Amino acid sequence: MMSHPHITTAFDEELKYLTRRISEMGGQAEQMVADSVRALVNSDLALAQKVISDDAILDDAERQIGEKAIVTIAKRQPMAADLREIMGSIRIAADLERVGDLGKNTAKRVIAVAGSGIPRKLARGLEHLAELALIQLKEVLDVYASRSPEKANSIRERDEEIDAIYTSLFRELLTYMMEDPRNITPCTHLLFCAKNIERIGDHATNIAETIYYMATGAQPQGERPKDDMTSTLGSVTD
Amino acid sequence: MMSHPHITTAFDEELKYLTRRISEMGGQAEQMVADSVRALVNSDLALAQKVISDDAILDDAERQIGEKAIVTIAKRQPMAADLREIMGSIRIAADLERVGDLGKNTAKRVIAVAGSGIPRKLARGLEHLAELALIQLKEVLDVYASRSPEKANSIRERDEEIDAIYTSLFRELLTYMMEDPRNITPCTHLLFCAKNIERIGDHATNIAETIYYMATGAQPQGERPKDDMTSTLGSVTD
Repeated sequence: MMSHPHITTAFDEELKYLTRRISEMGGQAEQMVADSVRALVNSDLALAQKVISDDAILDDAERQIGEKAIVTIAKRQPMAADLREIMGSIRIAADLERVGDLGKNTAKRVIAVAGSGIPRKLARGLEHLAELALIQLKEVLDVYASRSPEKANSIRERDEEIDAIYTSLFRELLTYMMEDPRNITPCTHLLFCAKNIERIGDHATNIAETIYYMATGAQPQGERPKDDMTSTLGSVTD
Repeated sequence: MMSHPHITTAFDEELKYLTRRISEMGGQAEQMVADSVRALVNSDLALAQKVISDDAILDDAERQIGEKAIVTIAKRQPMAADLREIMGSIRIAADLERVGDLGKNTAKRVIAVAGSGIPRKLARGLEHLAELALIQLKEVLDVYASRSPEKANSIRERDEEIDAIYTSLFRELLTYMMEDPRNITPCTHLLFCAKNIERIGDHATNIAETIYYMATGAQPQGERPKDDMTSTLGSVTD
């Protein structure tokens, strides 16, 4: 019995370790995404290369968090909220690793687009999309620190705004492609970049749902907002 | 001590449960991908709708496998190979859930493409890509049953073939878009579909790496094959 407070403290330290590593991952993922979009609009190949190599840091972090989480579960046999806390860490780390991948995928396309130069209006559209996705990611990481289920629920609803901007960017890119066949190849790469950024919003939504689950043990109420409406778009010239 | 054989048996049952559920998920994911491509090339909206609603089954399966895995770890405190076995189940279930998502994402685009009709040559290209991705997925699920690290390593190398076909399909789609602006919107959707199928190969590669890790406790040797080479393609008309 005497050792019980000690065990609790060690367990708390392990939870704190997981929380700290996830916050770090969140900051790194944000940075990668911001850098990838900056590299894209400025045709900055060196910055793109940095994002591509930074991805390994997030991959390692996810693996380490997962292993630490599993060892903690095996050692402490936590129940209920404590167990959900650790399971949530595994899921959030996986989502952040995916966000890093999306930044890397955007960075990989910088070289293909660099030659053509991106029209000012498109660049601003991409920057705006990334800005919203990054705000959502930042907010969800703040909610992660507070563990508030109410705040987690309100972030979920934000995803629709990102999707609306993605859809208008998608239409705009198609218009450029139709105007001049020489725009087709670079705009195709930009379409994939826009899709990468839009999907960051989905991961932020996933994380918000996981935080809700960690705090309450339940899935959030209500329908999840629709993602990417462009899949049902016919020809934009109709 | 008397209860020890009983505990071992119960643990074995839990591992068998995880293995069985993952094999089921694998079969469902394969079916979803095959159906989504069939729906796409035949403009079969009803089949597309079925794929979209089937996705919930894989989402639930992943959640249930994850929860069962965590409860098993907490209850049994497995070490070494047993622990890797359970951690591997969580990872493989996550990859299969993503494969289902990719099938769903393809199915969602069926309606956008249905009006235009897909040229025979493109349809065959997509079918061929899907065929290769499904062979790879099927083989990796067979290796999962055998847990052979050697076989897991040989599957990893197969991914390059899929990437080569994806790249040629990507170029072909751009050519169609350049020939006639009316092809741009449907071909854009097909580009995303091709990308969805190509990414199935990446998940099969992930699963092969996880199986290697489960069997040996190490990451596979050698560089992971490059994914998607189209990100460095400049204009295809150059």
